Amino acid sequence: MRLSLLCAGLLAALPAIAVEGMWTPEQLPQIADALKRTGLQLDPATLSDLRGQPMGAIVSLGGCTASFVSPNGLVVTNHHCAYGSLQLNSTPENNMLRDGFIAETLADEVSAGPGARIWVTQDISDVTAQVLGGIPADASDRARNDAIEAAQKKLVAECEADEIYRCRVFSHFGGVQYRLFRQVEIRDVRIAYAPPDAIGRFGGDEDNWIWPRQTGDFTFYRAYVGPDGKPAPYSEDNVPYRPKHFLPMAKDALNEGDFVMVAGYPGRTQRYQLASQIDDAIEWTYPTQIAIFNDLINIAETAGKADADVAIKYASSLAGWNNGSKNMAGMLDGFRRADAAGTKHREEAGLVAWLEQRGGEGRAALANYREYAALIESQRATRERNRVVNALAGSGLLGSANRIYRLAQERALDDAAREPGYQQRDWPGIEAGLRQLERRMDVGVDRQILEYWFEKYAALPADQRLQELDAWAGLKGDAPSRETLAAKLDALYAGTSLTATDARLAAFEQDQATLDASDDSFLQLAAALSPALKRLEDERKAFNGALARLQPGYMQALIDYRTSQDRATYPDANSSLRITFGNVQGVSPRDGMTYLPFSTTRGIVEKHTGTDPFDATQAQLDAIAQRRFGRWAVESLNDVPVNYLADLDVTGGNSGSPTLNAKGEFVGLIFDGIWESVASNWVFDPAITRTIHVDWRYMLWIMDEVYPAPAILRELGVEPRAR
Amino acid sequence: MRLSLLCAGLLAALPAIAVEGMWTPEQLPQIADALKRTGLQLDPATLSDLRGQPMGAIVSLGGCTASFVSPNGLVVTNHHCAYGSLQLNSTPENNMLRDGFIAETLADEVSAGPGARIWVTQDISDVTAQVLGGIPADASDRARNDAIEAAQKKLVAECEADEIYRCRVFSHFGGVQYRLFRQVEIRDVRIAYAPPDAIGRFGGDEDNWIWPRQTGDFTFYRAYVGPDGKPAPYSEDNVPYRPKHFLPMAKDALNEGDFVMVAGYPGRTQRYQLASQIDDAIEWTYPTQIAIFNDLINIAETAGKADADVAIKYASSLAGWNNGSKNMAGMLDGFRRADAAGTKHREEAGLVAWLEQRGGEGRAALANYREYAALIESQRATRERNRVVNALAGSGLLGSANRIYRLAQERALDDAAREPGYQQRDWPGIEAGLRQLERRMDVGVDRQILEYWFEKYAALPADQRLQELDAWAGLKGDAPSRETLAAKLDALYAGTSLTATDARLAAFEQDQATLDASDDSFLQLAAALSPALKRLEDERKAFNGALARLQPGYMQALIDYRTSQDRATYPDANSSLRITFGNVQGVSPRDGMTYLPFSTTRGIVEKHTGTDPFDATQAQLDAIAQRRFGRWAVESLNDVPVNYLADLDVTGGNSGSPTLNAKGEFVGLIFDGIWESVASNWVFDPAITRTIHVDWRYMLWIMDEVYPAPAILRELGVEPRAR
Repeated sequence: MRLSLLCAGLLAALPAIAVEGMWTPEQLPQIADALKRTGLQLDPATLSDLRGQPMGAIVSLGGCTASFVSPNGLVVTNHHCAYGSLQLNSTPENNMLRDGFIAETLADEVSAGPGARIWVTQDISDVTAQVLGGIPADASDRARNDAIEAAQKKLVAECEADEIYRCRVFSHFGGVQYRLFRQVEIRDVRIAYAPPDAIGRFGGDEDNWIWPRQTGDFTFYRAYVGPDGKPAPYSEDNVPYRPKHFLPMAKDALNEGDFVMVAGYPGRTQRYQLASQIDDAIEWTYPTQIAIFNDLINIAETAGKADADVAIKYASSLAGWNNGSKNMAGMLDGFRRADAAGTKHREEAGLVAWLEQRGGEGRAALANYREYAALIESQRATRERNRVVNALAGSGLLGSANRIYRLAQERALDDAAREPGYQQRDWPGIEAGLRQLERRMDVGVDRQILEYWFEKYAALPADQRLQELDAWAGLKGDAPSRETLAAKLDALYAGTSLTATDARLAAFEQDQATLDASDDSFLQLAAALSPALKRLEDERKAFNGALARLQPGYMQALIDYRTSQDRATYPDANSSLRITFGNVQGVSPRDGMTYLPFSTTRGIVEKHTGTDPFDATQAQLDAIAQRRFGRWAVESLNDVPVNYLADLDVTGGNSGSPTLNAKGEFVGLIFDGIWESVASNWVFDPAITRTIHVDWRYMLWIMDEVYPAPAILRELGVEPRAR
Repeated sequence: MRLSLLCAGLLAALPAIAVEGMWTPEQLPQIADALKRTGLQLDPATLSDLRGQPMGAIVSLGGCTASFVSPNGLVVTNHHCAYGSLQLNSTPENNMLRDGFIAETLADEVSAGPGARIWVTQDISDVTAQVLGGIPADASDRARNDAIEAAQKKLVAECEADEIYRCRVFSHFGGVQYRLFRQVEIRDVRIAYAPPDAIGRFGGDEDNWIWPRQTGDFTFYRAYVGPDGKPAPYSEDNVPYRPKHFLPMAKDALNEGDFVMVAGYPGRTQRYQLASQIDDAIEWTYPTQIAIFNDLINIAETAGKADADVAIKYASSLAGWNNGSKNMAGMLDGFRRADAAGTKHREEAGLVAWLEQRGGEGRAALANYREYAALIESQRATRERNRVVNALAGSGLLGSANRIYRLAQERALDDAAREPGYQQRDWPGIEAGLRQLERRMDVGVDRQILEYWFEKYAALPADQRLQELDAWAGLKGDAPSRETLAAKLDALYAGTSLTATDARLAAFEQDQATLDASDDSFLQLAAALSPALKRLEDERKAFNGALARLQPGYMQALIDYRTSQDRATYPDANSSLRITFGNVQGVSPRDGMTYLPFSTTRGIVEKHTGTDPFDATQAQLDAIAQRRFGRWAVESLNDVPVNYLADLDVTGGNSGSPTLNAKGEFVGLIFDGIWESVASNWVFDPAITRTIHVDWRYMLWIMDEVYPAPAILRELGVEPRAR
């Protein structure tokens, strides 16, 4: 592993910048040569055209990426990205997760839920001057935060003047640059095809992050718009959206070494964090968060075992917690093996030494670095409280009550003055969340989770606690007994009607006075908590203002330092559009073994135990046993390729991104990374980082042979086999 | 996996018989061509000479194999084979397991224990006629058993007339052939060198059966004999044994694809069991035995955590239970993946169909097969009782008392009439076991284990129980309450002096009348149990007689059937000397990945966590970090090879066997197989079966650089590096 890091260092110093990097579209000129060298057959410049082919076909689902694959609005993404919508449509009797879903005709397609969205990026503009221009020279940190927030809200409001758009400002390099994204927001999303869990989630949490892998992690949505072609909420009158661009299925083979590329919306990386932050992650953040995830998993799994309905309701939360727990454990493992903390400390010491060498030029940057580092360290004092209070106040029913109450407060203001997240543009999302709670929340589990957080809250030092919450719970210094807390929670859950969706939606419409007069126990608690949560928000805003003052200087110094070493710098992932490229290839993740670049259906038979998550369907087992692979088999594998590995640079949020070949054609979906490289979010190691993709030939085979969807195949330009 | 089995079938049908097969020395002419073709550079005929080079250097330790590697009696075997003797010499203060052991001079070498033996095979003779010739034509099954037993005892007694020999009769093919092994028995075995656990047991139980692997599983013994050159018990006057042959360290490289060969004493395989027996293994034997192992592990681990002394005492038992549990789980997994039961059933159906085709010729064989199958099935009725009673009666202190009592009974007879295992030749072994109990038994744990078995016994159906044991426990129909049993065990453990080694050794000398008069509670229980155990023994002997009557006919039919398909048949492993050969090579054990043929020190750094069993020593980590590999590094690996894979056919008992290259030189020690192929004991799959070997270059590097032993290196003909 130390060797690997050495390699990483060497590679980064080479002029080639292949593999590592989540590049923004505007950085394409910087990587054009590398793209060509790595194998791109398109003119790299075509990738800069967000409304052209192929970039115009890439869309965001919010948290996941997807792409248009037909002129009739067919969208493909990961099964796990559609998991929530499949869950919303599943009951124990009609279980879309278990049985999969094939819409024979358009009329059979079902809504992915009122909150489901598809965002089609139209353009990205540099708004750095507008965001930073309005900050008074002598602004306090709080004023700085508010000025930046106000400028962003103004930009977004202007951009969204035409209501078909959804806009968002992204900060790159910690505030060095700001970019405004304008996206068409499609609000009627329907499910067209999903394989059964036993294919789409084969291996489940057990195989999550694992190679060898054989997961058919794909699902088809369809985008719908009003008869006028404009985005509209779900309606029977709506018609399929006609995208300007869609990705054609590749006609050529895809082999080891071939160029692949992914465009998508990666969520968050920590490549430029301070060394002290990786220390914190290793010593506190991840170990404690893993313990919390495991506690929550235990609560929901125990309840789910006793009640199939509860199991369905928490399936999506459980998947998230399991994923998070495993991811963090993998990061800790990766940090240890790669000595990531040591690397970070050395890198930071190198920066400091470089700045010190620069004399007067470096002095201001050094002073800024020291202040920035002190600011970051100052978070430690309240990190436990912030985590617990945020989790408690955001949890399930209480979270709904708090959002309802806050919305009532904000609704009284002008829209431009409203808190981001509570502006008019955000209301449908809040409403959808309140509605969907009925499919994702069980009162018994909700109460157990709230109790869990309450016990953690009560264990905080007295000076970290919130007087309003202490007063509600009757806490005076010591933690309450389990019985006292149970009685409080009994009363809380007995005295509310918010467990009913209608009641939540009614409260959603009410003003603050009406809510204040309510005798609903959750709303009363929300009102009591409101001043406390506001205080914490004020603290956070002042902190963010200080961050906005110091972080850009730090990042600029780091960029300059890296430039002095001929190292290009891309911004940390922040859910904005990025491009990454590389090649299909295996890896030796550990001494004494290698991962091959392709997995095959043979692995499904090997792993099949008949028990979830290794319970392949009989239809699939039969097709494999009878070798009904048809044209989807690859000669060198003597089998259908199921998943493949590539050396791209992605993170959560890239899920569902189409994988494109050298011609920009569809060759699959990215859906995971290997366990050995999850630490790459912090420290990228090109020697062992590998992404996992569903092979499009497997998708087509499934739809041709195992769970046939001839109509979808035809729409993809593929003639189904004769039957 | 189904593909793999298909491949297995195809390979077996080819004239080449490489890879699969644990061949007896007398079968060497059958495999001479294959040996040459696979790469052997020696004349295959030289391997037939058991007293020549290299076979003369191979020795048995009983349960493990070893080899002479110097003219001065230096013997090398696995660390795990020497584990018991290292444990005997370890205390919490002076922990040879943890710290390793380097004898600077011969005088520093310590005894491996009074029971340690090295057996040097002198010759093997065919005694089939002698064993089977004395059975009366109309013998009952019991008489048949006794006649065979008597003939074997007679052969052994004659063979051991010169007391330097130890002799044993082995039955091949279930009684088709009998072979007498004559071995020089060396009784003074000392420890010369052992690496610390962190090298010799790196990865521990967690890595057991696992590839990639980085275990330095080697230890050096030295054989000592009396000043006259003849075997003698431990004495300060003894001198190193001068073997006629020893294995030279290889001078050439060993690379992927190179020929390797292992000669050793594999313990037991089940390649020719009936299909009903693999069914039983899947449905009953392994699942229930795994549960038992896990219970025993839990008892000993819990006690060991509370007391370091107890942990040392049960370390060896724990290693065995863990190994057994993991092995059986692996077999069940392998059976499932390979559809081993289906294969067996098809094979057996094939045999039956072939016999049916043969008309009159096959009729007798068919009738014999049916009777044999019925006999095998008849065991099911009492299998649970036999397991529980054998475990209970053999457990710890009670086992000692039962052996003492039985010995007193047998001692009254002529030696030739004594039960095998209780003849004069067996007494030293019994005595050594009674003595060693003090290092391997803790009264508290012993009692818990006995209680565990008692509870299992009490749960047997009433008609399966033993009246003597019921009477002792006050059992009348129902199981006793936990309190009743506890009181019985309190009294049992309070009323014995056998917890003291002196008392056990004194009782070992006493006759039956003296023991019958003893007021020792354990001896009284042994006397009470004696008639019951005798009844079970009578049952077993009658069964064995039936087996001797029917099994040879079944095996002969199977051999004939296989011969008709051009398939050679080697006997199941039975702890007698075998030769297996193949090549260094990796494997794709599962879809989407491969195991490389070599592991390296890089893997040690990767796996090192600082916590047992992944707690590499600082001395080793430093040597790796500083790349002090010297001449032991291999250029293509840029590292020292630690372990390697080959496609040999081995099982437990082969542990410690030297691995020889094409010239018959020492290139390491076999010590494990991969998890994916443990089921090969029942159904050999050449496509995935791989053995794991310690690379001799790693052993030499450890002794040259990490835990230096310059004197041993010189003795191996290797000049230590300058210091």
